[in-house]
Amino acid sequence: MQASNAFYAQSGGVTAVINHTAQAVIETAKRYKRIHKILAGQYGIIGALQEALIDTSLESRTAIKNLAYTPGGAFGSCRYQLKFPQDCERLIEVFAAHRIRYFFYNGGGDSQDTTHKLATFSQQIGYPLTCIGIPKTIDNDLPFTDTCPGFGSVAKYVATSIREAALDVRSMAASSTKVFIMEVMGRHSGWIAAASGLAADRNDAAPHLILFPEVPFDQQAFLNKVQDTIKHYGYCTMVVSEGVRLPDGKFLSEIGSIDAFGHSQLGGVAPILAQLVKKHLNLKYHWAVLDYLQRSARHLASAVDLKQAYQLGQAAVQFAMQGQQGVMPIIVRTDDHPYRWRIEAVALSKVANVEKKLPKKYIRADGFHITASCRKYLAPLIQGEAYPPYIQGLPNYQSLACRLVKRKLPPYAV
Amino acid sequence: MQASNAFYAQSGGVTAVINHTAQAVIETAKRYKRIHKILAGQYGIIGALQEALIDTSLESRTAIKNLAYTPGGAFGSCRYQLKFPQDCERLIEVFAAHRIRYFFYNGGGDSQDTTHKLATFSQQIGYPLTCIGIPKTIDNDLPFTDTCPGFGSVAKYVATSIREAALDVRSMAASSTKVFIMEVMGRHSGWIAAASGLAADRNDAAPHLILFPEVPFDQQAFLNKVQDTIKHYGYCTMVVSEGVRLPDGKFLSEIGSIDAFGHSQLGGVAPILAQLVKKHLNLKYHWAVLDYLQRSARHLASAVDLKQAYQLGQAAVQFAMQGQQGVMPIIVRTDDHPYRWRIEAVALSKVANVEKKLPKKYIRADGFHITASCRKYLAPLIQGEAYPPYIQGLPNYQSLACRLVKRKLPPYAV
Repeated sequence: MQASNAFYAQSGGVTAVINHTAQAVIETAKRYKRIHKILAGQYGIIGALQEALIDTSLESRTAIKNLAYTPGGAFGSCRYQLKFPQDCERLIEVFAAHRIRYFFYNGGGDSQDTTHKLATFSQQIGYPLTCIGIPKTIDNDLPFTDTCPGFGSVAKYVATSIREAALDVRSMAASSTKVFIMEVMGRHSGWIAAASGLAADRNDAAPHLILFPEVPFDQQAFLNKVQDTIKHYGYCTMVVSEGVRLPDGKFLSEIGSIDAFGHSQLGGVAPILAQLVKKHLNLKYHWAVLDYLQRSARHLASAVDLKQAYQLGQAAVQFAMQGQQGVMPIIVRTDDHPYRWRIEAVALSKVANVEKKLPKKYIRADGFHITASCRKYLAPLIQGEAYPPYIQGLPNYQSLACRLVKRKLPPYAV
Repeated sequence: MQASNAFYAQSGGVTAVINHTAQAVIETAKRYKRIHKILAGQYGIIGALQEALIDTSLESRTAIKNLAYTPGGAFGSCRYQLKFPQDCERLIEVFAAHRIRYFFYNGGGDSQDTTHKLATFSQQIGYPLTCIGIPKTIDNDLPFTDTCPGFGSVAKYVATSIREAALDVRSMAASSTKVFIMEVMGRHSGWIAAASGLAADRNDAAPHLILFPEVPFDQQAFLNKVQDTIKHYGYCTMVVSEGVRLPDGKFLSEIGSIDAFGHSQLGGVAPILAQLVKKHLNLKYHWAVLDYLQRSARHLASAVDLKQAYQLGQAAVQFAMQGQQGVMPIIVRTDDHPYRWRIEAVALSKVANVEKKLPKKYIRADGFHITASCRKYLAPLIQGEAYPPYIQGLPNYQSLACRLVKRKLPPYAV
């Protein structure tokens, strides 16, 4: 039997550890003679549609190994919803032209839905394509899996950052800045904001307040909490999710001079809260917006997160080789302390369009912090340090050659 | 001769390494019998005025040692200009009451001016007070010294952060965000913005543009540069100093809805640039504002910066013991590669009110990046990693007991 090729693509927002998953897929596939080459989509699935296929066999073994500590998406990524059925037909056409029989799609909820649809479609038309999803999302919202690669590293970064900034604020609060606001990602769920709460290992420790998208913003309650915190500790540090909403469902970031500043895309909820604090409490404030820094901070990745990122990529290839179809490897937690897990497979049909929400029991009754059960869940995910190598004082990240295989088909517009 | 006490205070904005200087002062002073105790000002010089003196001898040896890796100001800090002569008189009163004969003031330009004034004042009134300044400022604007403790660590953090975020942007630029703006500190000078340029070790590497306070903002030139960069590399990442000014001298951060958002305090120049990019080039953007995170990020400190922070604290005590008066230890560079330096003393009378500006020759002719000579100067300052210890996945920073000595004088209002 002639060996087939496999296709791998990175999908959606990239993370500090997604390249470690890519590395796992490539290194694991090499052990199986049934897989000839791994062809990676340039800029994700768009690369498959446009027949822009990166020949990963042309990258050196060292370059692939160095993906372990390189953030971003080494092959490029995109957010693209497949148009049905024409895009699926095109994919099969490209896959047939390049003898691709394995499809590994590394992404979040939407991507798993795509993988599921493609698995179904290829079966219907009789093209033999093994479709395996691989979880990845800093949003931590995929169902069944204990956590998603990328999240643990963001969690470690945001908790460390608020702890450090708080020491700064505390030093000078007596005569200067009393309120510090750090904005984190999480348009729809508060997983990342919640993770910052891990830094609060004592009552007086930062963050003093957390604002979740799950808790409608109550201005008076917020201002009261800020005042109470300052009364007790002399300063107030908080972490706010970009997705915090008003009781009417509107994003808090959308109020104010939206036309002049286009805040709905800007994600600037921190300056709006700062303004409220100034106006109603007349307190000096500072604010920070982490944006992409939080999901690319490989210099502070979680060792547990990295390990899981690799194991899930590895399992994806193994599942394909075992003849599984339309599944995604997941993390199943077997112990909290020490953290233990095993990898299992779950059907993509069950994963598609299901979102793991931040449970109510993880949010403190007053809505402004996390609970002990939340800490218990989150704590293992940030364990361990795994530093990149440095050259000349800076992380020495890997760039790949990304050479494309020769095109065989006419162009296709996406 | 009965041993005297020494006073140490942290002044102005704190840094990731100022506590390492405090540690050096305390550990070095212990070796001299002439110094009985180091009393630290609670919240800086305000602590001296209010007779809130922390007895550092009550901290454990381990706690003091752990200051090496703890950001923020362990004894507290403040921005406070001494009122002349009443505050100086009060200081001498407090110092006399507590047998303080040595004054170590750890701060930037204003603080060195204060140290100088106090040295002069105490001499005039005949109170024997040895006054030594110790440099500290992330602004890197003290004269004579090759660099200032705190700056090298900020430099390492901002250069690493833009490198990481750029890998993220590059992954998805084909179909998503094309412009990324990272705002850094530097109200009056572009040292920090310049330091981010160290990440640009190749033509295509981030940051693609740097906006300095020294270069009046030219909107059209800026937009042209953004467009050119995107044409060449497919995306554009930039670092912008909070202090960027319009040709008329106004801060760029002050345009727009200043009343609604109070931008002059907010320091939000990144969202304003984002808005320009959107309006004139219709490009998708993201932005980040680092704020306090950049000066408290001990998890990514420069080993060289830390070493200098300690050596300067050590030298300050040694100078005092040698009978020097009204001086500040400085770093004198003796070689670039490998970086070598020695410590010398400079008279505070020469330091006071002199600001080391970013030289013109460090800014590229087009005003949008640094030059080779700037790289040569900056490169040594970010060398080496010096990680803090982690517990449960987070940096295990030290808090001090900060027990005050008994007050002997009536209260004093500041």
